Amino acid sequence: METETVILKGHIIDSLIFAKVLDIILQVGGTFDISDIEIGKAREDPTIAKISIQAESPALLEKILQAVQPHGAVLVELSDCVTEIAPQDGVLPDLFYATPHLVTQVRLKDQWVNVEAIEMDLAIRVRFDPLQAIAIPMATVKSGDFIVTGRNGIRVFPLERPKGRDVFSFMEAQVSSERPYKHVIADIAKRMRLIRDNRQKTLSEGPEAANRELGTKVLLVGGPAIVHSGGRDALSWLIDEGFIHVLFCGNALPTHDMEASLFGTSLGFGLTAGDIAPHGHEHHLRTINKIRGLGSIKKAVESGVIKDGIMASCIRQNVDMVLAGSIRDDGPLPDVITDSIKAQDAMRVALPDVGLALMVATTLHAIATGNCLPAKVPSVCVDINPAVPTKLSDRGSFQAVGLVMDSSSFLKELARELNWSG
Amino acid sequence: METETVILKGHIIDSLIFAKVLDIILQVGGTFDISDIEIGKAREDPTIAKISIQAESPALLEKILQAVQPHGAVLVELSDCVTEIAPQDGVLPDLFYATPHLVTQVRLKDQWVNVEAIEMDLAIRVRFDPLQAIAIPMATVKSGDFIVTGRNGIRVFPLERPKGRDVFSFMEAQVSSERPYKHVIADIAKRMRLIRDNRQKTLSEGPEAANRELGTKVLLVGGPAIVHSGGRDALSWLIDEGFIHVLFCGNALPTHDMEASLFGTSLGFGLTAGDIAPHGHEHHLRTINKIRGLGSIKKAVESGVIKDGIMASCIRQNVDMVLAGSIRDDGPLPDVITDSIKAQDAMRVALPDVGLALMVATTLHAIATGNCLPAKVPSVCVDINPAVPTKLSDRGSFQAVGLVMDSSSFLKELARELNWSG
Amino acid sequence: METETVILKGHIIDSLIFAKVLDIILQVGGTFDISDIEIGKAREDPTIAKISIQAESPALLEKILQAVQPHGAVLVELSDCVTEIAPQDGVLPDLFYATPHLVTQVRLKDQWVNVEAIEMDLAIRVRFDPLQAIAIPMATVKSGDFIVTGRNGIRVFPLERPKGRDVFSFMEAQVSSERPYKHVIADIAKRMRLIRDNRQKTLSEGPEAANRELGTKVLLVGGPAIVHSGGRDALSWLIDEGFIHVLFCGNALPTHDMEASLFGTSLGFGLTAGDIAPHGHEHHLRTINKIRGLGSIKKAVESGVIKDGIMASCIRQNVDMVLAGSIRDDGPLPDVITDSIKAQDAMRVALPDVGLALMVATTLHAIATGNCLPAKVPSVCVDINPAVPTKLSDRGSFQAVGLVMDSSSFLKELARELNWSG
Amino acid sequence: METETVILKGHIIDSLIFAKVLDIILQVGGTFDISDIEIGKAREDPTIAKISIQAESPALLEKILQAVQPHGAVLVELSDCVTEIAPQDGVLPDLFYATPHLVTQVRLKDQWVNVEAIEMDLAIRVRFDPLQAIAIPMATVKSGDFIVTGRNGIRVFPLERPKGRDVFSFMEAQVSSERPYKHVIADIAKRMRLIRDNRQKTLSEGPEAANRELGTKVLLVGGPAIVHSGGRDALSWLIDEGFIHVLFCGNALPTHDMEASLFGTSLGFGLTAGDIAPHGHEHHLRTINKIRGLGSIKKAVESGVIKDGIMASCIRQNVDMVLAGSIRDDGPLPDVITDSIKAQDAMRVALPDVGLALMVATTLHAIATGNCLPAKVPSVCVDINPAVPTKLSDRGSFQAVGLVMDSSSFLKELARELNWSG
Repeated sequence: METETVILKGHIIDSLIFAKVLDIILQVGGTFDISDIEIGKAREDPTIAKISIQAESPALLEKILQAVQPHGAVLVELSDCVTEIAPQDGVLPDLFYATPHLVTQVRLKDQWVNVEAIEMDLAIRVRFDPLQAIAIPMATVKSGDFIVTGRNGIRVFPLERPKGRDVFSFMEAQVSSERPYKHVIADIAKRMRLIRDNRQKTLSEGPEAANRELGTKVLLVGGPAIVHSGGRDALSWLIDEGFIHVLFCGNALPTHDMEASLFGTSLGFGLTAGDIAPHGHEHHLRTINKIRGLGSIKKAVESGVIKDGIMASCIRQNVDMVLAGSIRDDGPLPDVITDSIKAQDAMRVALPDVGLALMVATTLHAIATGNCLPAKVPSVCVDINPAVPTKLSDRGSFQAVGLVMDSSSFLKELARELNWSG
Repeated sequence: METETVILKGHIIDSLIFAKVLDIILQVGGTFDISDIEIGKAREDPTIAKISIQAESPALLEKILQAVQPHGAVLVELSDCVTEIAPQDGVLPDLFYATPHLVTQVRLKDQWVNVEAIEMDLAIRVRFDPLQAIAIPMATVKSGDFIVTGRNGIRVFPLERPKGRDVFSFMEAQVSSERPYKHVIADIAKRMRLIRDNRQKTLSEGPEAANRELGTKVLLVGGPAIVHSGGRDALSWLIDEGFIHVLFCGNALPTHDMEASLFGTSLGFGLTAGDIAPHGHEHHLRTINKIRGLGSIKKAVESGVIKDGIMASCIRQNVDMVLAGSIRDDGPLPDVITDSIKAQDAMRVALPDVGLALMVATTLHAIATGNCLPAKVPSVCVDINPAVPTKLSDRGSFQAVGLVMDSSSFLKELARELNWSG
Repeated sequence: METETVILKGHIIDSLIFAKVLDIILQVGGTFDISDIEIGKAREDPTIAKISIQAESPALLEKILQAVQPHGAVLVELSDCVTEIAPQDGVLPDLFYATPHLVTQVRLKDQWVNVEAIEMDLAIRVRFDPLQAIAIPMATVKSGDFIVTGRNGIRVFPLERPKGRDVFSFMEAQVSSERPYKHVIADIAKRMRLIRDNRQKTLSEGPEAANRELGTKVLLVGGPAIVHSGGRDALSWLIDEGFIHVLFCGNALPTHDMEASLFGTSLGFGLTAGDIAPHGHEHHLRTINKIRGLGSIKKAVESGVIKDGIMASCIRQNVDMVLAGSIRDDGPLPDVITDSIKAQDAMRVALPDVGLALMVATTLHAIATGNCLPAKVPSVCVDINPAVPTKLSDRGSFQAVGLVMDSSSFLKELARELNWSG
Repeated sequence: METETVILKGHIIDSLIFAKVLDIILQVGGTFDISDIEIGKAREDPTIAKISIQAESPALLEKILQAVQPHGAVLVELSDCVTEIAPQDGVLPDLFYATPHLVTQVRLKDQWVNVEAIEMDLAIRVRFDPLQAIAIPMATVKSGDFIVTGRNGIRVFPLERPKGRDVFSFMEAQVSSERPYKHVIADIAKRMRLIRDNRQKTLSEGPEAANRELGTKVLLVGGPAIVHSGGRDALSWLIDEGFIHVLFCGNALPTHDMEASLFGTSLGFGLTAGDIAPHGHEHHLRTINKIRGLGSIKKAVESGVIKDGIMASCIRQNVDMVLAGSIRDDGPLPDVITDSIKAQDAMRVALPDVGLALMVATTLHAIATGNCLPAKVPSVCVDINPAVPTKLSDRGSFQAVGLVMDSSSFLKELARELNWSG
């Protein structure tokens, strides 16, 4: 029987981390004894547990240690992390350590060093003089980079339950159409107000005045159903009022939105009662062509061609937009980044300081965003198909809330909660 | 090669009936020639087509004739319908004719006689003195009744395209979350106003003043998600304003509604922001127990125990309610009809003069209603799961409209379209 | 500040019960201190925790105590449970205690007495000479019965993690179409073999030879999609081989099955390649009528009218069948119990000794079964719509496994795992 | 009142084209008279109809003419098509004609000229010496190109009902989980055999020996659920047996497949019973990194690193693969085309001679393929979510069949139908 002892520390009881680690040990096929535990009596006190893990073979023990490490389990015996050299540009050492989307430190020269730019499924590149660790995508590694491998000398800080008492602070994801959603939307609205206030404080009093934990930006990740289901006015209003600061989308959302501005239709369907005749994809294509002719969405808005809607509001409010292309696009619009790797990079650049992510009616963009969002950012996934929020919450953020409803109803209720009169 | 000639008559071109019949002949394995056709030049003129059907065997020919008959195809050679005697109470002759939900006539003593109480999947009982034909459920047949068998001497009048130009008059069912729904809801609202006006005319000027085609009642078939998703206020308002006249539901919708009135929760979840603690099923059970103690929903409202909500509005507005039980019920409420056959009968009694059926967030009750609703009644099926409207439209009403959205968003938008300010 | 101390005892750490209780205290709005904890060092040892709960008002404290009680929290100070007299037949005292579906005891004359026939959402009736406690549905209470009210003197034994290492023993419900299902089906098959062996042992060696914990019956709760999606042969084989012992269904599953036997179709669609012509509902109706004429499914099978399929296998293998009616039924078949309360009672009678419940392609019957199934019975919910397993697991069994797949594929894979060669 | 007369010709009755055109005239707000009709008496004979369209304004009449034109309606009076010059590279003239995915001709110098490379939503570029017309994407137009604008001198040949009598030849799309799927899969298998035979004939006897209508390639468009739901073996077998010739997918399907080859897992979940421990995304990432190091999937297979599975079969059978990137990709694999416009072009190059398209468990790639697939190619869309087939069939191919089932069950049943013994 092989044995190894790990330590877990923090609010591990009420954040479920302790239970989760014991569960994993059993799942993977080991057994455990709790060799020592010191439970924090009051809510503020941390708990420290020593868990002795047993497994039938060294390989199984290694597998268990791998599995519990991302949940914060650290070996009792400390050592520096191991690094290996990247063999080619764009290729990592075989045994590279893949990051979780949680705060992570690596041990270099007997010191714990924070890993910068942390994000799920990246590698850690280290430099030794001065000591530095940064998370990088596989595609950007250079031959000769020092890359962390194995499990030693790495520690992860699992998310603890947030202190607030709102929808983002509970243990159960709310992915169900069986539950009332009104209070969920109210909690989202409350957080949006807080972030807007925080942002204004930063702008007027400087960054040090802000609550960094809370963030100063709200990210909306949106699909075209927002427009054709009728959520355009509500979303434009939210942008105009300064509640949205970053927009991730594809080619279709802006095209539908500007089609509505130019032709009053969305994918050829009239958006107002009384005009129910389909116009096919023509208006969609003419819209793209028109904007291509003008050179950019910004020019289209500034020249007065596009007068209202989501894009007009975004340009006027200086919303940071990343339009990522996909193979189902027509055109595309001139602002679309057609290379998926470049689009991911543009998304990464826009993410710092995001304090709330709203993912509405888009599977592709929501998952792409989930991939590069740190776990601590509260996120909301709204879709009429329950499989989408489930898929996202499978990737495991503690603070992800799912809502099964249509996108325009969500945006309208959210805007009304924030005093929209539409 | 076996051959038989059928006649199709009416607005069969633009109602797609002609195309449908030809399609069926090919599907079942026959071929056809159009032996004569006289197309109505103008929109008002009927078309008459003689179609000669060929099949390789008498059995196949019979199968084809069976399949095209419910679409209005009538044999060129007329004969009386055939009847056989029911062998036992509750048991029909083996070859009984099963009705479609379309206007149907049977030929008795060389006359075409209308079948009363037509509904899908019933048998036709005839009496000869005086001539009478009525559609009856299997369970109610008596030993010795004359029941129509086979296909001869029966003619069906397929639905023709309605003349209005609204969402109920088009060829394609709108079962898609990809299309704008605003105009669909506007058309539903328009029809609700017309029916309310028609109803008031009937009440003040007598039944002969009414437009019988339009109907004088709106039926709501509803599931409990209406309450827990937050649609209770909107629905109560619609009832108070006289837009709903019949309600079909189960045990859960009224219980959730009265739980909201008594405890402010739905299935134990708080319906307002700020109270997110689950109370389990307790409030649900206490609500049922309370109403059982009082004897009926009517008494609960009239005694002031239930002060607001859907049930209170229904009682005050004299809405005709049928509460049908199911095996997942707790309690149930004292008003619930626990026997499914008796509940079906109660639904049938309430259906005449219904001019619009709204089926919201309930698969079971929607399908049960679809089973006994004549095809000519426009119906709307709203569900967050696209499979429900699809399932219903598979049963084949020309005027069924599907909307994939959550029930509270639907009811709110509908009420706002009718001037609700909530 | 109001304070009360509760005790939690058992494998509360790795069964998540401890974390869950702390979570609930915070959710409902209280705070806690862990006044004492003794953690079991090894897996077999129980943990005992004393939790001091604080709340701002007596009402809030009461609410918290109510919420944690079903998770096993017991007040430090013991007292007898309180009873009140039922005021009418079918009506409980206002403050009746509603049961969870977990092993429960009430304290009578200073002794803990087991509550018999435990099931979710019932009341507890007690008798004092001799001491007895039994869970009863609201509809069956008699005026004058002693019914437990309030929270005192009641203790609940939350489910602990099962010792086996299969799909039924883990912390996460598997409701996802994103994960491989092969091993889930393998674990189900393994358990079915074990139960069949256990059953044979009981039959040959007497009930005391059996493993009571494991159970001696497998329950299948099935919807009609089993037949029309093509799972009929696989299910018949499972029954013939002795893997299924109880069947809960409605009118449609047996009708579809016998329609396939009589006409080779299901809802009028041919079940074999080459016959794609729809026959409408006719075959469905003729099948019901035929069985009504014969008097029962048993007679139809024994007289040789129904030769193969699910019903034929059930009759031959003496499967205990409960056919529960619903308002969407045609006919119905003579075996259908049309009264929902009587049908629930029939289901209750068949449940003891069920060791595994498979709920396949039916929302209504699955939820009805979930309502009366004790939490300890492992259950599997299979549906193509992910909302159904989610809905069921919302009701909270530890051992519920959800599979998002079509019913015939599930049954075929399961049968193949058990050596079916179809 | 404005009036214009159009002509419809072909098998317009039983292909529903006639009914569709009349429907559209009414929908858009016009009226019609059938000024002349000559119905083909026998199935082979074409029908010729002259329809006089009336509208209240010239604008409305123009809108109606636009809407009926893609359904084959041609103005009685013939004229050459109008062309305008593209103003910039990548920008079309404002009024460019957007193509449907149907056979199309334009009239140049009084001759009808076929439009090459037809596909949905493209523009038509013409050259005059010699006369040539070709469909091109917006992004590839060059300044100065002659582009067809307006509606004159263009005719479209709507799809007519295919002569075969299988699942691809009927009027109703089969998007329903309520119907038996066995015969649908049998018909797909039959067509796959025919195409394989046709392909072998072409290879052995030269292209002129082939049935061009039938096609010589089967295209599979697949998502990663194929692997994690367990369809890998069945699909590999189909490729090995020569039933699949083109594969469109993203980064995830090949990665999951090769992860299974290298580690026996898919997204970290064990694919075989007994290993239910999650390994997270690590294996996924290591697989991508390994193939990046080797340079290509081809090298990974040829060097023996990847021994079995879908990719191994594709390489061995010379399947034409297009791997299109998306923003949710890790890595990506070296074979992935990260630019979406280049990926679309690569898909276009692979499409000619495809006679059947199977789209399995992928929304993004299925829609992208649907965009560039001519309408005449029979296609099958399989997804566990009914919204996906609905979405695809909304785009309107006559021969699209939808199946609501999980991907591995589909592939296994299909392979068994083709004699797989797995």
